[in-house]
Amino acid sequence: MPVPPVTILTGDRPTGPLHLGHYFGTLANRVRLQSEGADLFVLVADYQVLTDRDVADRLTEHVEGLVADYLAVGIDPGAATIFQHSAVPALNQLMLPFLSLVSVAELRRNPTVKEEIEASGQATVSGLMFTYPVHQAADILFCKADLVPVGKDQLPHQEITRLIARRFNERYGPVFPVPDALLSDTPNLLGTDGRKMSKSRGNAIALSATPDETARLIKGARTDAERHITYEPDTRPEVSNLVRLAALCQGRDPRLVAEEVGGGGAAGLKKVVIESVNEFLRPIRARRAALDRGELRRVLRRGNERANEVADRTLAEVRAVMT
Amino acid sequence: MPVPPVTILTGDRPTGPLHLGHYFGTLANRVRLQSEGADLFVLVADYQVLTDRDVADRLTEHVEGLVADYLAVGIDPGAATIFQHSAVPALNQLMLPFLSLVSVAELRRNPTVKEEIEASGQATVSGLMFTYPVHQAADILFCKADLVPVGKDQLPHQEITRLIARRFNERYGPVFPVPDALLSDTPNLLGTDGRKMSKSRGNAIALSATPDETARLIKGARTDAERHITYEPDTRPEVSNLVRLAALCQGRDPRLVAEEVGGGGAAGLKKVVIESVNEFLRPIRARRAALDRGELRRVLRRGNERANEVADRTLAEVRAVMT
Repeated sequence: MPVPPVTILTGDRPTGPLHLGHYFGTLANRVRLQSEGADLFVLVADYQVLTDRDVADRLTEHVEGLVADYLAVGIDPGAATIFQHSAVPALNQLMLPFLSLVSVAELRRNPTVKEEIEASGQATVSGLMFTYPVHQAADILFCKADLVPVGKDQLPHQEITRLIARRFNERYGPVFPVPDALLSDTPNLLGTDGRKMSKSRGNAIALSATPDETARLIKGARTDAERHITYEPDTRPEVSNLVRLAALCQGRDPRLVAEEVGGGGAAGLKKVVIESVNEFLRPIRARRAALDRGELRRVLRRGNERANEVADRTLAEVRAVMT
Repeated sequence: MPVPPVTILTGDRPTGPLHLGHYFGTLANRVRLQSEGADLFVLVADYQVLTDRDVADRLTEHVEGLVADYLAVGIDPGAATIFQHSAVPALNQLMLPFLSLVSVAELRRNPTVKEEIEASGQATVSGLMFTYPVHQAADILFCKADLVPVGKDQLPHQEITRLIARRFNERYGPVFPVPDALLSDTPNLLGTDGRKMSKSRGNAIALSATPDETARLIKGARTDAERHITYEPDTRPEVSNLVRLAALCQGRDPRLVAEEVGGGGAAGLKKVVIESVNEFLRPIRARRAALDRGELRRVLRRGNERANEVADRTLAEVRAVMT
């Protein structure tokens, strides 16, 4: 008897190009899950970033860039639903019933909100930040996702989604799966300055970087004074991060990579990292080079259409059990 | 030079038939404003009541009953836009930007929320109740209303709408009028038991009541022991309320009505009230009798279409200034 495919909701805010941290943190996982038969929904959260002026100015560019990144890393647009938040109004229609199912006390337990209120008071927490976990519940539940890949910091949000799904089903009837969180076991990749990889810090190797840009960023990476290269994340974080980056790109154990470089020092290590990253990015760059804007737009249009069908169907079900 | 018409947003929750309290409190005003050339939007808030189980069970009946009440009292569906909340998804798309423009501290200042939190703690305040003023801002601003007829208890909500309109315009560009509140000067009509007229208390004379039902309700109304009828709202609230009801129906000064009844006592007064109300309701009943369900549905369909056009236009403007 065939098992129905697992439905997975993932997504990104279109705020700039994706980088290697995204790849090893979540994109690789999405491609793998898709290849195993999952029904993959990829949300381009273009509506939530509208309130961020700097991003909004270049929104179309960012949205299309994101789709190019998805296709370049190997997400199959024929099987996945890549869609824009702003194109699926029915999704927002879930906000009203969902808001009625959580209390203000529960929304205040969100660590992000709690920290912000403790640090600066509730005048600095916007209604949007406060209700963010409910928006996320609508994103996840509209397509009845069973599984949501998340980082550790997102687990509390995910709990609100599960709470809403459970309460809705209890009160009105069984409509939603209670989605499980899929925690990635890859620790965060650090940027070339030893801090968290982030496009805003200029320490990130974008998936769309050229070989020269990639080499320049890695050559400028922070290391330490010790000539012999080892993999010791706790005591030598910067060097170990470079070792790990090469190892991830080669699909090998980082201790082996470190041993091979041995006494080659920082320069020897960086040479290996540059070669590994560029080798790894080669097929991704080739796929990107074959894409044109018309193709990106077609992918989005098809994704938006499918997401709308799914959202309309879910909303009809929601209204049917509620009335 | 022609002045553009004032746009007015009003509406009701479809929870049961409208009564005389609604008529003199707000419906008469809507009909008058429309006859003076206002562009009238009438929102049937069918989406917000979905979370109320008892109401949701009979939603279609309630929605169509509301439209019948509107047409019966003389709202011209050719000029007004009578529409259902659930049929205008673009309206809810305004929630995200609007939520970003108010703080949790501002939402907590809402007296309803404040009272509820003080009385029972924030675990009993739902996210829906907490964000209600923002939903209302979306209802009002999607059609760019200049004027919103409100009761005194709704003034704080109205302030949030004005705040959101001002902040949006300052941050992104001039899109929304900052709507004024139109406070009704008619004090609340009391029910036949001397308490606030309310369908749930069974003390309300519905606009759809038959002459017999009307007579029965008024005959059972509470009065006092004093035989001579006077109009003294502070010291004789029940008798004065009946006098006022007759006076409103006759379009005359309540003191004159009281004088005419004079020594006729409660029985004499009730006879006058029954005649006045039934006379007043006669044309309303006649218009209602001429309506059929097909007509009600056509009115809603046309209204929903127009509301969608307006909402799509506003949303396009909002997105254009934000990007």
